[in-house]
Amino acid sequence: MRNERASSERPHVVIVGAGFGGLAAARALAGAPVRVTVIDRRNHHLFQPLLYQVATAGLSPADIAQPVRAVLKGQRNTQVLLDKVVGIDTAARTVRLRHRAIAYDHLVLATGARHSYFGRDEWAARAPGLKSLEDATAIRRTILEAFEKAEFEDDPERRRRLLTFVLIGGGPTGVEMAGAIAELARKALAADFRTIDPASARIVLVEAGDRPLAAFPARLGEEARRNLEALGVEVRAGTRVTRIDEEGVMVGNEKVPAETIVWSAGVVASPAARWLGVEADRAGRVVVGPDCAVPGLPGVYAIGDTACWVDPASGRPLPGVAPVAKQQGAFVGRLIARRAAGDGRPARFRYRDLGSMATVGRKLAVCRFGAVQVTGLPAWLLWGAIHVLFLTGFRNRLAVASNWMWAYLTFQRGARLITGER
Amino acid sequence: MRNERASSERPHVVIVGAGFGGLAAARALAGAPVRVTVIDRRNHHLFQPLLYQVATAGLSPADIAQPVRAVLKGQRNTQVLLDKVVGIDTAARTVRLRHRAIAYDHLVLATGARHSYFGRDEWAARAPGLKSLEDATAIRRTILEAFEKAEFEDDPERRRRLLTFVLIGGGPTGVEMAGAIAELARKALAADFRTIDPASARIVLVEAGDRPLAAFPARLGEEARRNLEALGVEVRAGTRVTRIDEEGVMVGNEKVPAETIVWSAGVVASPAARWLGVEADRAGRVVVGPDCAVPGLPGVYAIGDTACWVDPASGRPLPGVAPVAKQQGAFVGRLIARRAAGDGRPARFRYRDLGSMATVGRKLAVCRFGAVQVTGLPAWLLWGAIHVLFLTGFRNRLAVASNWMWAYLTFQRGARLITGER
Repeated sequence: MRNERASSERPHVVIVGAGFGGLAAARALAGAPVRVTVIDRRNHHLFQPLLYQVATAGLSPADIAQPVRAVLKGQRNTQVLLDKVVGIDTAARTVRLRHRAIAYDHLVLATGARHSYFGRDEWAARAPGLKSLEDATAIRRTILEAFEKAEFEDDPERRRRLLTFVLIGGGPTGVEMAGAIAELARKALAADFRTIDPASARIVLVEAGDRPLAAFPARLGEEARRNLEALGVEVRAGTRVTRIDEEGVMVGNEKVPAETIVWSAGVVASPAARWLGVEADRAGRVVVGPDCAVPGLPGVYAIGDTACWVDPASGRPLPGVAPVAKQQGAFVGRLIARRAAGDGRPARFRYRDLGSMATVGRKLAVCRFGAVQVTGLPAWLLWGAIHVLFLTGFRNRLAVASNWMWAYLTFQRGARLITGER
Repeated sequence: MRNERASSERPHVVIVGAGFGGLAAARALAGAPVRVTVIDRRNHHLFQPLLYQVATAGLSPADIAQPVRAVLKGQRNTQVLLDKVVGIDTAARTVRLRHRAIAYDHLVLATGARHSYFGRDEWAARAPGLKSLEDATAIRRTILEAFEKAEFEDDPERRRRLLTFVLIGGGPTGVEMAGAIAELARKALAADFRTIDPASARIVLVEAGDRPLAAFPARLGEEARRNLEALGVEVRAGTRVTRIDEEGVMVGNEKVPAETIVWSAGVVASPAARWLGVEADRAGRVVVGPDCAVPGLPGVYAIGDTACWVDPASGRPLPGVAPVAKQQGAFVGRLIARRAAGDGRPARFRYRDLGSMATVGRKLAVCRFGAVQVTGLPAWLLWGAIHVLFLTGFRNRLAVASNWMWAYLTFQRGARLITGER
């Protein structure tokens, strides 16, 4: 490794994953007396909360992604490495990549989560999840092609199936996708076709729990349900998907023939626990101590969706959301900087719950800030402002804000491209 | 066909291809007493003159593409069909698609051109051309990955090969790609890497003719060459590529090891002539009469890159550029509207040469308008203004203009995403 030949006194911090957690950790180490290497399989940091807008043709991939190098280019102690981690040798203290190994003094695992099909992995091909830009453009293609095929389908039953969209999982992603597809069908595409009426599309949101947005206060979940129903979305709460096949989805006892099925019902942590050979919880997350350190492996930390950090107040693990990852990343970065400066005192992460929000459609959202609940237009404006503010990079903020302004004024969605292989 | 059942008195105009020519023809038929069906394999109209900017991470696909349906949605006599033409039955007067056939009364073939490797089709995989959004994002991936791989390549020879970019063909696409890669390497990526200096990248433009931009006046071609050389591009005019393999390119007698090779040296018309079974010129174009009609096939027209229309003034075919396609499309659209109204008088297409332009890099371009030649900053500003003006759709104009403004101020390129399969 050239960088190891170059300097060897400063401790080497390896951060795996350039999501919210990994980037926050790297930034907290700017100027610290360490060498930092950020490893990611992808060259870009992705603003996942808006990924569903790429899948529904509202935004372009480049609007919500930024090259990791560009984000960190001013940070001279930090190097970015585009590569895939295949394992970790905790005895030798090295991270194994495809063609080489990298030694670490401190290791931060921020590898995120992927979809879990609860043992039904055969459903993945038919009901893809939404984690990467490739997922998003593939789902966009499926949705737009469904309308195209329906336009020239003579058989009413097959046409109905093409115009049925099933979203499995009533969390923010499922709710936001359902709202966005409803608006795409009822507004953006309304005048584009000659034989079908896109507004007749059937959109079904399936949630095993009692109501959508189970992690939100009950009133907000019910508000989201009302908003979705006003947009024409069928909300099937308290119902499980029992079967997914070529034809469609079995929702409880009802067969719903559908061309487009999107999965956001469950996640499982990336294989970090397996790499380390340590204890994981049911969702595959590495069980960490109060300082996000992995017990028994000095200098190794896990954060964000990769980690199970039990909140002493509630006795439950923190949820897999961006603010947890960001705060843990910043905490671990600062902790490593202190350790590198010789400060060995124990530390404890504290989570500051800033609230949560989800948008349902044009002028509709639900937000919670501490005990304050906001709905409707004010919530929607807050949702938009906070998402633009939290985007990485000025250019992206500008692009997203102007796309939204345009969409607001025209009811159109600007990225209706069918690209890639069929 | 549902649409054929619906109305049968009005003549049916089938337009194959929604590029510049096909769209112009469709628009000229707005309000005419005909039914129009526009068929394209893709759901979007592509503004090809800016495709190289997607390939070099300056713009996003959605900035230069627009759904064909959205463009034509206000035109109630027009239907859009996303399908692939596989043949034409001129006796039965039907266009054969994958799973059905469509009858026509008038047929406009505007299917464009694809790359020609002059019989060396095995070069295509190693030296892709730039025709579709998929081509552009694939080339973008190759270029950005080359820098990523070079950053961690210890062998100086292999590093040199990774940082060598060869553009084959000195027309506007080759010239604009060369300038854009030079700026990407020298400006946008300058501070991003730690072990390589992106500015050391070697960029080679190969042109078999005497100078770049052979179709431009000699002074402008020489000016473009000087501009490119000032950006550090090696311009190899009067030199042929004799071999392309895994290692790189044989440029005349010199072996140039290179990871990234882009082909823009030649085009051949799409197989319209073969579908029709009519005479084609050497470039595969359908030889058409003065009214763009295909001799011997009443009601069948070929336009743009698909057609060989010999200019009576010069005795030579018109070049394969956007203005020719647009003007022929509008001409044929108007002619068909007249024919549908019972006017059988002969007509003759007249080409109005508005000039030509190519940009070389920041603040540099060459333009010709009639006998007037413009270079440098004024040409660059004109180039930018005219391209924004000619873009299809207000949203795209806004997006491209704001991306350019941002790039101008920051020297950055906003769409540096590595996406898709490797």
